[in-house]
Amino acid sequence: MYELFYWPTIQGRGEFVRLALEEAGVDYVDVARQPGGMARMLAAMDGADYPSYAPPFLKGDGVTVGQTANILLFLGQRHGLAPADEQGRLWVNQIQLTIADMVAEAHDSHHPVATSLYYEDQRPEAKRRSADFLETRIPKFFEWFEGILGRAGPKPYLLGEAVTYADLSLFQLVEGLRYAFPHALARIDASHPLLAAHRARVAARPRIAAYLASTRRLPFNEEGIFRHYPELDRADPSAP
Amino acid sequence: MYELFYWPTIQGRGEFVRLALEEAGVDYVDVARQPGGMARMLAAMDGADYPSYAPPFLKGDGVTVGQTANILLFLGQRHGLAPADEQGRLWVNQIQLTIADMVAEAHDSHHPVATSLYYEDQRPEAKRRSADFLETRIPKFFEWFEGILGRAGPKPYLLGEAVTYADLSLFQLVEGLRYAFPHALARIDASHPLLAAHRARVAARPRIAAYLASTRRLPFNEEGIFRHYPELDRADPSAP
Repeated sequence: MYELFYWPTIQGRGEFVRLALEEAGVDYVDVARQPGGMARMLAAMDGADYPSYAPPFLKGDGVTVGQTANILLFLGQRHGLAPADEQGRLWVNQIQLTIADMVAEAHDSHHPVATSLYYEDQRPEAKRRSADFLETRIPKFFEWFEGILGRAGPKPYLLGEAVTYADLSLFQLVEGLRYAFPHALARIDASHPLLAAHRARVAARPRIAAYLASTRRLPFNEEGIFRHYPELDRADPSAP
Repeated sequence: MYELFYWPTIQGRGEFVRLALEEAGVDYVDVARQPGGMARMLAAMDGADYPSYAPPFLKGDGVTVGQTANILLFLGQRHGLAPADEQGRLWVNQIQLTIADMVAEAHDSHHPVATSLYYEDQRPEAKRRSADFLETRIPKFFEWFEGILGRAGPKPYLLGEAVTYADLSLFQLVEGLRYAFPHALARIDASHPLLAAHRARVAARPRIAAYLASTRRLPFNEEGIFRHYPELDRADPSAP
């Protein structure tokens, strides 16, 4: 039994952990979504031997662990969502950290000045940053993912036949970008067929499909990492 | 013998790896700083079974590993720069990933719109973002580090008596911020005495001191992560 500590009203970074817990089929409590849970989370964040700078963090099985990629590193080894050998574990972690870099950039596309300010207070800057994100950054990252999926012949998952936590996170990343930038992603998706197929393949895995259809899956919204602001979504960002 | 692949003219993210290699006392070649090394790096980045999205990456001892925190995870286990137990390893990785988050924010303080643009093309945005970075973000991160150093009584290093790779990275982070924002950091340093003492303690370790005095240590400059633009450095960012 694990306790996941994360903000109760957004997918956010906690969603990458939720997807791994769901695919692993392990019992967990989403603490802050229970009655009194927010107070418990805020107390746990600071009071422990291993304080977290920010949610998400996870407790259970004798450990306390924070930082999304670190939680996944732990869960991957415990629950068969990563290879057992050192090179394989490092490679999955490397992909995950690259996904995390892109997630941070996706967040900053609507908050380029300060997390502490509203989007509306940084809209001109967000327009400039989103244009670059769509034109320069998404294509560069997507090309890297597409290359891994096509390396030595197309394969169903990033490492081959077996799904890893990085596959689940890549699904969430692409799904989030499709929510935030539907017009731009339709164009970009078309030129990255392996990545588009990968997203659909992860979504169809039985435990993931059941989770996505459940009330445990929060909807995307404009409080999370992936936000849909129509004025930032352009089918052709290089157009004037 | 390791081969480190990183840009040859900046400290950048490669510096976190260099510090760990130096403290571990292991042999390594800084490939791109050798004759013909840049071409070798660009070929290796893409051609391998484990392509890196960007430098740094490391080869040696039978593995290829990219992403700074992942390289350090590997080196920490191999060379005694992290605890051997699972909780200890996860905790050091958690701290390292939090340092990495702050490093990314330090970079974006001068490049809030796009890495592909010059600083001069995003100076107004950089002024807004830097003000928030100095006023809001540095204090929040520094409070977290200070809290860890003071937890259960002051201790020399983040985990206690033994130095880890996260200590070396925290030194580099604080050192870089002191270079970028000398006026602001003088003020902030004064209210975080444990962190200031920690920086000096790491700098005085024999292997680190020898490295810092050598030609292997590149100087900070305005091409790296930590850049000194006087107009972004304010002793009191809340002043009008």
